[in-house]
Amino acid sequence: MTLPYGKRTMTKNNLILGMALTDGYGNLRGAWRAPNVDPSNYVNIEANIRYAQAAERGKFAFLFTPDFPAVRADVERAPISNIIEPLISLTAISQATSRIGFVATGSTTFQEPFNQARQFKALDVLSHGRAGWNAVTTSDPAVAANYGRPVAERTERYQRAHESIQIVQALWGSWEKEAWIKDQASGRFADPSKLKPINLQGEYVASRGPLPIPPSEQGQPVIFTSGGPSPHLLSIAGRYASGFISEVWTIEEARAQRAMVRRAAEEAGRDPDEIKYIVGLMTTVAPSVREGLDRRIAIAGDTLTAQVPHLAAMLGVQLQHSQLDQPLTPEQLAAAQASPMDPRSGPALEVARQGWTVRDILAHGVIDYHPVTVGPAEVHADHLQEWFEAGAADGFWLSPDVYEDGVDAFVDHVVPLLQERGIYPTEYPGRTLRENLGVPELYGLDPRVTSGEDS
Amino acid sequence: MTLPYGKRTMTKNNLILGMALTDGYGNLRGAWRAPNVDPSNYVNIEANIRYAQAAERGKFAFLFTPDFPAVRADVERAPISNIIEPLISLTAISQATSRIGFVATGSTTFQEPFNQARQFKALDVLSHGRAGWNAVTTSDPAVAANYGRPVAERTERYQRAHESIQIVQALWGSWEKEAWIKDQASGRFADPSKLKPINLQGEYVASRGPLPIPPSEQGQPVIFTSGGPSPHLLSIAGRYASGFISEVWTIEEARAQRAMVRRAAEEAGRDPDEIKYIVGLMTTVAPSVREGLDRRIAIAGDTLTAQVPHLAAMLGVQLQHSQLDQPLTPEQLAAAQASPMDPRSGPALEVARQGWTVRDILAHGVIDYHPVTVGPAEVHADHLQEWFEAGAADGFWLSPDVYEDGVDAFVDHVVPLLQERGIYPTEYPGRTLRENLGVPELYGLDPRVTSGEDS
Ligand SMILES: Cc1cc2nc3c(=O)[nH]c(=O)nc-3n(C[C@H](O)[C@H](O)[C@H](O)COP(=O)(O)O)c2cc1C
Ligand SMILES: Cc1cc2nc3c(=O)[nH]c(=O)nc-3n(C[C@H](O)[C@H](O)[C@H](O)COP(=O)(O)O)c2cc1C
Repeated sequence: MTLPYGKRTMTKNNLILGMALTDGYGNLRGAWRAPNVDPSNYVNIEANIRYAQAAERGKFAFLFTPDFPAVRADVERAPISNIIEPLISLTAISQATSRIGFVATGSTTFQEPFNQARQFKALDVLSHGRAGWNAVTTSDPAVAANYGRPVAERTERYQRAHESIQIVQALWGSWEKEAWIKDQASGRFADPSKLKPINLQGEYVASRGPLPIPPSEQGQPVIFTSGGPSPHLLSIAGRYASGFISEVWTIEEARAQRAMVRRAAEEAGRDPDEIKYIVGLMTTVAPSVREGLDRRIAIAGDTLTAQVPHLAAMLGVQLQHSQLDQPLTPEQLAAAQASPMDPRSGPALEVARQGWTVRDILAHGVIDYHPVTVGPAEVHADHLQEWFEAGAADGFWLSPDVYEDGVDAFVDHVVPLLQERGIYPTEYPGRTLRENLGVPELYGLDPRVTSGEDS
Repeated sequence: MTLPYGKRTMTKNNLILGMALTDGYGNLRGAWRAPNVDPSNYVNIEANIRYAQAAERGKFAFLFTPDFPAVRADVERAPISNIIEPLISLTAISQATSRIGFVATGSTTFQEPFNQARQFKALDVLSHGRAGWNAVTTSDPAVAANYGRPVAERTERYQRAHESIQIVQALWGSWEKEAWIKDQASGRFADPSKLKPINLQGEYVASRGPLPIPPSEQGQPVIFTSGGPSPHLLSIAGRYASGFISEVWTIEEARAQRAMVRRAAEEAGRDPDEIKYIVGLMTTVAPSVREGLDRRIAIAGDTLTAQVPHLAAMLGVQLQHSQLDQPLTPEQLAAAQASPMDPRSGPALEVARQGWTVRDILAHGVIDYHPVTVGPAEVHADHLQEWFEAGAADGFWLSPDVYEDGVDAFVDHVVPLLQERGIYPTEYPGRTLRENLGVPELYGLDPRVTSGEDS
């Protein structure tokens, strides 16, 4: 467990971009039916490779694969929503790319730590230091049922998560930096004193080790986590994570969360700059806002207009379907109030006040998983810059509306603008994911982090 | 669960070849130290890709990755003996090849069936129908310790194996052949009546399903198993396997085992031709036998001569180290008897009777995991043809002495001879692993196999 620190890239141009790889189509409802989209793309690794290569052209630091392994959606009308398998898909993509990193979601509840340690480190080694693990506890009952179990209590899930992550990190470090001699002349292959068992025994999981895989170019994979800032999750993030993937709708919310995440790292004895807070953003890049909205309406049409009642509730006004192509009346606008129950209500009200029709308000994506930006490059660049400079994010994970042309559009139009503004790198800072995130190398458990279990 | 049968390739030229991918170096002890070998090849996916491409040039049906995930060897002197991770490595290789199949070993004891079903099918889909699963119960205590457990009783291991394989196959079949509508015009994505839960509840493992991955070009991955022909393993092989990977030293032993495996398939209600019995062979291809032996002595030197006492015991004679460069004396030969305790003794005695020195007898590889063939192309082709025509094997899995040049040597010299002799295909019979093995397509559980658990 030597050398916890390594070189560090920290410049002004350090806004981080990642991209979600989901179902092969895109994150706008109906993307699979868009005219230029092949409806088989859910299983076409070739399509995902194209998207990854486009993101790499745009110097994206990583691809991120969310994962809830179950059939969740209404499969009759909408695609099953995630990549068929994160590690297998990203491994295939690694062979067709050279710089972009791979943050694969992996459950601490439904995986054996030894298998997880092994597969992630294998990808790290064969991608030459580009792997990351988004460690989540997975609380979806449909997923649990696929493993023949009920969802465990949160305390149990997080206890197992601490144990799993510590075992995985210890296994990653069990082959130490100088262990591999491989001297053909003398015949010494490895130094057994630097390739040692870990002998970790938790309440839920255990492993003897060592893991017979040497360090990669970045030492070991980067740990991420994602979720809301509960004390349970913050304890995971603070101790182990170098990236935190979040879901927030406003700058204020993001700043508060980022501060909590950074404080958690500090409390675990780490430098808060070592954990990158990454917020979501869904993008539609188009020559103008009007054309962007039209694109969204053409693709997501019916599913947008079905949201009228939801919008009405968010704004506290009555909205009729017949009002779809009208803006809110002055009376409605005067009466409207952002619902405190839904953080998206404030941004939605702002859009309504700009005078858009109800259909266009919805086409702005005001009811979605993340903030949505629609329009020419400036709209997206302004959003990214504003959040970044406000200390609301260290980076963003983007979900393009339609992968087939949405990644290229962002890379060709928005990325150059970010580079001109001096907030985004023009070349990859390094060759490994850690270098491109600006987080230190690590071998094994971080010695600054107490190793006792937490509950 | 429709259409259990599909097209079948059964010609005269149907000897099957597979190749083991192990540690990146080769299966001759000391291969990692050979002059033309890069000692980092254990982690160089690029090297494994070269070997795979060479095997594909030779129309090999599959690559096979044995797997005992633990540090087993004397790591100070010899490499850790298996590929860093079977599925991750083979997935990377799949992207640089187009026809060769991938038989990855996966334990039914230390894996969750849902994860296994998902990862194997993901590889199957993205390789366009080239995946196989070597399902083994794993009885190595060093492996069990990595999962924090003792080795379970055989009855328990095999009960869990039956449950796991049935769940995996049912999950593979849970997305039926006609389930994916993906009609952009009507917006129908999938037919929920053909994408159904499996609801299998075993004693050790369970899963609800369905698995959200459609069939590949071959339906689903091919199941293999490997081991000695115990009743437990034969019950697995007979019901589920399309390939049986074995370890035998003589034609007689192989014929008897192959008959047992075929009978087990018949007893499970299947056509015995649907299970391919694949025997091991380790090869050193050289211009002459003498040059082959010299190559082996140069690379494996000390480790060969350390086997003198073992050889003496196998033949029931006294052998001195000083006799290394002498053949057995007429008196020794007259007294020698093949030990009934070691199936390798008969073949060893045959080599001794040919008059080779003790060093050369050992250089023939008479004490190894599989039969060894050394010399020019004819030696190898004769061995393969003799076993094949005697009904001792449907195919062979080869372990070259040194991958770096051993695969090319076999492909360039032995393969053409097999093709000339009309026992080996000159082109791949098909595009999928099932087509190239000559086993039928399958969707879900084989309806001919009773689905009750076995113990
Ligand atoms: C943006 C984002 C992405 C997430 N991705 C996943 C995921 O892919 N798989 C998963 O199981 N959990 C994922 N999570 C985490 C779960 O939703 C998490 O369990 C939840 O936020 C906290 O609930 P808990 O405290 O009960 O675990 C994600 C969360 C967020 C905010
Ligand atoms: C040629 C061959 C290859 C094998 N490969 C593996 C392997 O890679 N991993 C594994 O766990 N078992 C493997 N096995 C199977 C185990 O050795 C098997 O458990 C053993 O043969 C039977 O022991 P059991 O009945 O107690 O399970 C292999 C066996 C043979 C003959």
